[in-house]
Amino acid sequence: MPYINIRITKEGATPEQKAQLIKGATQLLVDVLGKNPQTTVVVIDEVETDNWGIAGETVTERRKRGA
Amino acid sequence: MPYINIRITKEGATPEQKAQLIKGATQLLVDVLGKNPQTTVVVIDEVETDNWGIAGETVTERRKRGA
Amino acid sequence: MPYINIRITKEGATPEQKAQLIKGATQLLVDVLGKNPQTTVVVIDEVETDNWGIAGETVTERRKRGA
Amino acid sequence: MPYINIRITKEGATPEQKAQLIKGATQLLVDVLGKNPQTTVVVIDEVETDNWGIAGETVTERRKRGA
Amino acid sequence: MPYINIRITKEGATPEQKAQLIKGATQLLVDVLGKNPQTTVVVIDEVETDNWGIAGETVTERRKRGA
Amino acid sequence: MPYINIRITKEGATPEQKAQLIKGATQLLVDVLGKNPQTTVVVIDEVETDNWGIAGETVTERRKRGA
Repeated sequence: MPYINIRITKEGATPEQKAQLIKGATQLLVDVLGKNPQTTVVVIDEVETDNWGIAGETVTERRKRGA
Repeated sequence: MPYINIRITKEGATPEQKAQLIKGATQLLVDVLGKNPQTTVVVIDEVETDNWGIAGETVTERRKRGA
Repeated sequence: MPYINIRITKEGATPEQKAQLIKGATQLLVDVLGKNPQTTVVVIDEVETDNWGIAGETVTERRKRGA
Repeated sequence: MPYINIRITKEGATPEQKAQLIKGATQLLVDVLGKNPQTTVVVIDEVETDNWGIAGETVTERRKRGA
Repeated sequence: MPYINIRITKEGATPEQKAQLIKGATQLLVDVLGKNPQTTVVVIDEVETDNWGIAGETVTERRKRGA
Repeated sequence: MPYINIRITKEGATPEQKAQLIKGATQLLVDVLGKNPQTTVVVIDEVETDNWGIAGETVTERRKRGA
């Protein structure tokens, strides 16, 4: 019954890609720890680039600089 | 001063229902552990059904199948 | 399939009290939103008083002051 | 490589203010613990006032009362 | 720069298994979304079975019943 | 009434350093957004180096390599 929270910047992940993340993360817990997939929960949070920082600056700023 | 985070799929919870969740969760901590409600924080996250997975598939897919 | 995370200071909650929190939080989601209890997950985090702050100071300091 | 999650009510924080929170939180970890800012992540969650509760009521209700 | 939080019950995952979870989750974000692994963070939380509930009861109780 | 969660590896942060993080994070929210410190909560999670991964490997492995 694991709970997996994947947080990414909101930059266009498609429903298909999100379905793949959910499928893949669930399978990972089955493969490595033998967890029951039926009660494995995966939640994806998509966060605006203004609200995500790394190295002290927002991703919005980094994208403008081409980083 | 507990912090309670309730994560649910975004499927139409009303402001009244959310107020009830907040009231009920706060009262639960008072009743069971004698916590001070004045500093008890409850945060509800509503997550798109595309972003919530269980049993390796998204809730969107499950709803389509009638699950 | 809600996920509820209850974070409290580690100050002696018993297994019975924690079982009550889990039962009560699950029931709350059934009562207010009609959620399925079978896939409702509740996780309790107990946090050392040195690691929990409110009003800019640790709970350890507050307890010493009798706050 | 710390991860810092700042959760606030959604009440008009500007991109500049959010950039300041990210810069300040990153610097705090450098100053206090000597952490590497390059791998320090800060994520800000802005939560609707209907979804945030304190003292058993929503922030929406508190704002109406002028609290 | 994704952040992935894997929460499991504390039931004997080895350092090797945890290393596999970290490697696998990081690779999943590379494969599905082309994310940079260098700034991908994975944090595993192991939670006592007394503190994890599903279907309204603790995992400790479920394990006793053989569930 | 912000909630701030600081997650770091468990590598010897002292109670004094943790008190500084709590004080500093609370002050940051006052300075940038004018938040009320009385209801600002800061929670520090210290995570074993086996349980923290970056760039696909655990911090334990990185420390061994001198990274």
